[in-house]
Amino acid sequence: MMAARRAVAIGGGTGLPLVLGCLLDGGFDVTAVVTMADDGGSSGSLRRELGILPPGDIRNCLVALAEPGSELGRVFQYRFGKGEGLAGHALGNLIIAALAELEGDFARGVEAAGQLLGVRGRVLPSTLADVVLTGRDAAGRLVIGQANVAVTDGPVTRVCVEPASPPAYGPAVEAVRAADVIVIGPGSLFTSIIPNFLVAGMTEAVRESDARVVYVCNVANMRGETAGMSAADHVDALVAHGLADDIDAALVDDGTVAPLVVPGVPELRPVYGGAADRQRIEALGIAVRLAPLADPHMPTRHDRARLAAALAEVW
Amino acid sequence: MMAARRAVAIGGGTGLPLVLGCLLDGGFDVTAVVTMADDGGSSGSLRRELGILPPGDIRNCLVALAEPGSELGRVFQYRFGKGEGLAGHALGNLIIAALAELEGDFARGVEAAGQLLGVRGRVLPSTLADVVLTGRDAAGRLVIGQANVAVTDGPVTRVCVEPASPPAYGPAVEAVRAADVIVIGPGSLFTSIIPNFLVAGMTEAVRESDARVVYVCNVANMRGETAGMSAADHVDALVAHGLADDIDAALVDDGTVAPLVVPGVPELRPVYGGAADRQRIEALGIAVRLAPLADPHMPTRHDRARLAAALAEVW
Repeated sequence: MMAARRAVAIGGGTGLPLVLGCLLDGGFDVTAVVTMADDGGSSGSLRRELGILPPGDIRNCLVALAEPGSELGRVFQYRFGKGEGLAGHALGNLIIAALAELEGDFARGVEAAGQLLGVRGRVLPSTLADVVLTGRDAAGRLVIGQANVAVTDGPVTRVCVEPASPPAYGPAVEAVRAADVIVIGPGSLFTSIIPNFLVAGMTEAVRESDARVVYVCNVANMRGETAGMSAADHVDALVAHGLADDIDAALVDDGTVAPLVVPGVPELRPVYGGAADRQRIEALGIAVRLAPLADPHMPTRHDRARLAAALAEVW
Repeated sequence: MMAARRAVAIGGGTGLPLVLGCLLDGGFDVTAVVTMADDGGSSGSLRRELGILPPGDIRNCLVALAEPGSELGRVFQYRFGKGEGLAGHALGNLIIAALAELEGDFARGVEAAGQLLGVRGRVLPSTLADVVLTGRDAAGRLVIGQANVAVTDGPVTRVCVEPASPPAYGPAVEAVRAADVIVIGPGSLFTSIIPNFLVAGMTEAVRESDARVVYVCNVANMRGETAGMSAADHVDALVAHGLADDIDAALVDDGTVAPLVVPGVPELRPVYGGAADRQRIEALGIAVRLAPLADPHMPTRHDRARLAAALAEVW
């Protein structure tokens, strides 16, 4: 039997688990490389109170790689609705925190969580450093902290982590270097995706790999960090943060999916700006693939089947 | 192959998991029947904040029936040392709470937790009613709540639950009725063991069974609820709470184990009072079995190997 092709998905948030599902469907040997800049919600509380790295995005990726319907996966995704100090916490975040202490460090804790869940694939933090994300918006204002950057009056123009250039988590850069396919995004551009490339050696690893590198652009604008940005603006931001000459293809929603539900998000609009966008992206040496990708039931997100089909064409 | 003999262990606290281990070693089909009167510590907080039954004793029994060294068992027993609202909670208590909600009720949540842990045997609450334990001490003072009764200026003379005679959990009384061996104790007499017999139908189930019924007396006095009580006093308390004519044998430490560690417990003394105790217990129609049972390293507790050997002789 031929060894499975190795795919690495880089990102965070809700986009990354979706891509992991597509990659599993595609028969890949799957690795997720996950941002550690998150500081909001349950993850943020645990960072501050327990002094651990943020477990939330890791948890979602682990569950995406567990058997569908796994009872332990349901336990991981259970969120307390009440209880002083418990309300708002995802139980899997607490389990990962416990395993990090039991196993001696965060990375081994994540690995142990993956074993308990019987995951098919690996989930790796991009760094084990305790970093703070900072951003600058178009007006030049400095915004400190991932959760604050995400809701800033966008668009954001630049993000950094402090301390700068934290060491990469070795197995994560190794996985990137050895990949046959690398999928970047979808997800929050400045607060989930780019932070992975602010880790020392990560963009170099993408460059050194022989992988086909695909950027999956968001299907809609987010309020806050990417307000008003087109598909080409998204790609420009990646290039500005170190990914020049590294991306082979950008997968962009063609804007043809009619939303079945209109959410109360006035800023929502398709990111594809038409011919001008295509020209700008292609001028960077990046092929543009257009496809109907949005989920008509939740038009700010990708539809898994559509994304899987479009990704399969790209690789 | 002959069907395994059915053993039911009734109690709570740290004594019950110990007995479960002995019963597994003895090749029994094991069921634990666990008090639901606990209202202290992590269990008590979760009762008050989440409105669930106390999971702590259940958790310890489940882990005792899991494979030794089970990673998920370690996760269940992990206790948070810090974190607002997290510190002091055993993670397994939180997992049982989550499963109780996911599965729709506490008993099914416990069953699901057992399946996740791959337990050999069953762990059953004695009742699904939300009860409050009250006690009276020798001076006639009323003490409300299990945690308060446990530390009262003992000895306690009488405990009740409110509401009185709560309905038994059906599978628990069924297991007792069908048992070949029933082990009562060791454990906190008034706050872990007797509460199980204040549930409607539990003493009747013991009586209706064909089981050999063994009471394992504590090896040392507890400060608080059983202060100053001898082995015969312990048996008298069980009889006074409904177990007249039901116990076949009492397994009592013979006081010969020399403690290797002297804990800071001045009230600690062996419970066996010698010939007078034997006479009083035998006068109730209960055989007395004396053996060196205490753990020399922790002389307030039973040594597992010694208890297993002594129990094997009794049945």
